[in-house]
Amino acid sequence: MAKAPVLTPQAEDFPRWYQDLINKAELADNGPVRGTMVIRPYGYGLWERMQQEMDARIKDAGAQNAYFPLFIPQSYLTREAEHVEGFAPELAVVTHGGGKELEEPVVVRPTSETIINDYFSKWVQSYRDLPLLINQWANVVRWEMRPRVFLRTSEFLWQEGHTAHATYEDARDYAAHIHRNVYGDFMTNVLGIDVVLGRKTPKERFAGAINTLTLEGMMGDGKALQMGTSHELGTNFAKAFNTSYLSKEGQQELVWQTSWGVSTRMVGGLIMSHGDDNGLRVPPRLAHVQVVVMAIKGDEAVAKVREIGARLKAAGLRVHVDDRVDTPFGRRAVDWELKGVPVRIEIGPRDLENGTAMLARRIPGGKEPVQIDALADLLPKVLDEDQAQLLRESRERRISRTSDVATIEEAAEAALAGGWARIPWSVLGPEGEAKLGEQAVTVRCLVAEDGSVPEADDAPGTLAIVARSY
Amino acid sequence: MAKAPVLTPQAEDFPRWYQDLINKAELADNGPVRGTMVIRPYGYGLWERMQQEMDARIKDAGAQNAYFPLFIPQSYLTREAEHVEGFAPELAVVTHGGGKELEEPVVVRPTSETIINDYFSKWVQSYRDLPLLINQWANVVRWEMRPRVFLRTSEFLWQEGHTAHATYEDARDYAAHIHRNVYGDFMTNVLGIDVVLGRKTPKERFAGAINTLTLEGMMGDGKALQMGTSHELGTNFAKAFNTSYLSKEGQQELVWQTSWGVSTRMVGGLIMSHGDDNGLRVPPRLAHVQVVVMAIKGDEAVAKVREIGARLKAAGLRVHVDDRVDTPFGRRAVDWELKGVPVRIEIGPRDLENGTAMLARRIPGGKEPVQIDALADLLPKVLDEDQAQLLRESRERRISRTSDVATIEEAAEAALAGGWARIPWSVLGPEGEAKLGEQAVTVRCLVAEDGSVPEADDAPGTLAIVARSY
Repeated sequence: MAKAPVLTPQAEDFPRWYQDLINKAELADNGPVRGTMVIRPYGYGLWERMQQEMDARIKDAGAQNAYFPLFIPQSYLTREAEHVEGFAPELAVVTHGGGKELEEPVVVRPTSETIINDYFSKWVQSYRDLPLLINQWANVVRWEMRPRVFLRTSEFLWQEGHTAHATYEDARDYAAHIHRNVYGDFMTNVLGIDVVLGRKTPKERFAGAINTLTLEGMMGDGKALQMGTSHELGTNFAKAFNTSYLSKEGQQELVWQTSWGVSTRMVGGLIMSHGDDNGLRVPPRLAHVQVVVMAIKGDEAVAKVREIGARLKAAGLRVHVDDRVDTPFGRRAVDWELKGVPVRIEIGPRDLENGTAMLARRIPGGKEPVQIDALADLLPKVLDEDQAQLLRESRERRISRTSDVATIEEAAEAALAGGWARIPWSVLGPEGEAKLGEQAVTVRCLVAEDGSVPEADDAPGTLAIVARSY
Repeated sequence: MAKAPVLTPQAEDFPRWYQDLINKAELADNGPVRGTMVIRPYGYGLWERMQQEMDARIKDAGAQNAYFPLFIPQSYLTREAEHVEGFAPELAVVTHGGGKELEEPVVVRPTSETIINDYFSKWVQSYRDLPLLINQWANVVRWEMRPRVFLRTSEFLWQEGHTAHATYEDARDYAAHIHRNVYGDFMTNVLGIDVVLGRKTPKERFAGAINTLTLEGMMGDGKALQMGTSHELGTNFAKAFNTSYLSKEGQQELVWQTSWGVSTRMVGGLIMSHGDDNGLRVPPRLAHVQVVVMAIKGDEAVAKVREIGARLKAAGLRVHVDDRVDTPFGRRAVDWELKGVPVRIEIGPRDLENGTAMLARRIPGGKEPVQIDALADLLPKVLDEDQAQLLRESRERRISRTSDVATIEEAAEAALAGGWARIPWSVLGPEGEAKLGEQAVTVRCLVAEDGSVPEADDAPGTLAIVARSY
């Protein structure tokens, strides 16, 4: 099938390609209030699947869902000094409610550490109440000066986990467990993105944290995207809100806390990791539509695709039946390609005679005829191959576009050329980090030589990964 | 087991009983900003199950989920005259964002008809784009002067469906389908509440609707709770936002619309329908914890309840294992009773020898010894019985506390005595409705004599159901 280019090619203008894809694949629109977004059904379907997969992993990690209010008294934000400094410039403030000016303005939550600690301080009394492991799915608002759909929006959807522990070690281990076994597992094995797990430098830490763990993905243009973070909060918020417990030994002790979040930003990461000049490519384990069964034309084909669709659904696949034969087939095929559905099964009048269909694969590309009766067995294998291919491509890109360098100048050069640089942190240091910052290059994270997460910034052999970022 | 009364008895003070239950069963707390609430994990678990069941039914009805922004430009609200009049007194207004005063203040959505129509007017071009069936799960804000947890809160969680259709009939039928087959089915068969389906009088309609369908439940004190509504919007919003389409015949036509919602208010309805002086009683089909397997004391009992818990989970039951033997058994049993878990399986040292357990049933009450090996077969039957009992009790209450009356005075008397009255709408009429309103008695809905929903307010034989309400 010959195609007119529906998207600006990536190589020509990557940001424009990204915006084109979001529009044409009907993922999202800009909202009427600057920086907000409307997530359209196909885009929201991606987010729903992310929620499902993540929620199951969060529950496996022992956390329970709850819901805290959108509105936080302004005074709460100021209790933790670094926290308020970090968030003050981004706040949305409600000054009027119910037709009157409020006595105390309230802020729309930019994150919920403060309000949650207000309740933790009531709920936690004894060591028996610990660990307290809470998660919430919510919208948050951070006023955004340079918005970009999914990546930086004034309102976004996320989950935020908040936990309280009896000891430093328990909190540290839990933050690490979320980082690796919840977020890392999901991003690698469901999103198919070969994320790097590391720790943030002090400069890049969350406002109020003693340690921030991050997952960084390399996008199609070689820039980095922070895909999620897990923070050790130490006792900073516990002190500010007096969140303490009576220990087994009868002492009143502050709790040690963590918080961790991933957001609709992951949808942006998915697009920029796996998209190509024909549109999105959705990893099969994530896809809410893994297979679209398309009638090319004719009533018999329509009846057949409905039948095949029902059969494949019963076999456990996530299937959409496209029987809109009053819309030209070519236009529909381009649309499913834009939307990145891994597999299309196309049925036309000739296929009905032969018991065959065309199998079109979005991820490796190409088409081949297949026996309809073989589909239920064949498709799970095809989808497994496709899932593996996306992760492999992501890994290959990261490896081929990461260079080991010895100087700050080389690091900057590699990053500005559209790749990542690895440089010893002992060479770079906070001063070098500041210098890179002048060229809009940042330290994405610190990693150990063996790829593990260093226990401290100054652990021997620690490497900094340096890149431009979203 | 002798119990001290943990809750204010219902007969003594129903509102205090309600608040006691919410506190002691750890369902929710009041938020720091007036009228807001913190939904605690056990309460949120109820809401999550409501969402799951409702979401599946909404998807079966063909609607797709999407997400629209929290912030709406203030000017949008004013485009539909009745709508703004209805909501203006309840709005929360953001005047500052990102450290600056905004050029145009934005309101926090009280509902999303206006912003959604802004997008529908872009997305809908041709008859091929119809029907457009969208749902969103979101938080909304309506500033509340007399807040009560779950029932009237300044922020609440809900789903709001919004649809656009080519004809009046198609919109009318879809609103009715949601009313009966989505909401009615869920409330009757999952929540176990014998809701009455009817239409609102013009006075009680949603601001901007041409018809509002409602589901009204009778609470334990005989008052009514509006559990959900489905609206026909006619072309009111379509006119205000110019949401139109090119018909098959080549004419530009306005769309016909519906909107419909249920909220965390249903949690309040659940409590007030099924709760008793010992706490909540959760219908098994809803319950996120259907069975709690409790170790009374001792390590062997702990090992045993874990084993039984795993076995019952594998059998498809929603099970919680309570192995906190360092907390007194009696206190834990009272707690599960407060939380309304339908079935407790209690295992003590003696049971281990005999291969038996105590089966304690929250809904009919009572305890009996059972063979542990029989549990996986027995429990689904027990839970089915319990589900049926709650619906039966709800139906019996509604029937026994509803009286047919012939005059406005009798209607007011029946309602003020804690019941519902049924009176011909031809006798009551808008004037009688206004008169009842002076005594805080309202027309909950209009129904036909055979219990169906009248096609019009003035359909012959239409009855008004009159009650005090939440």
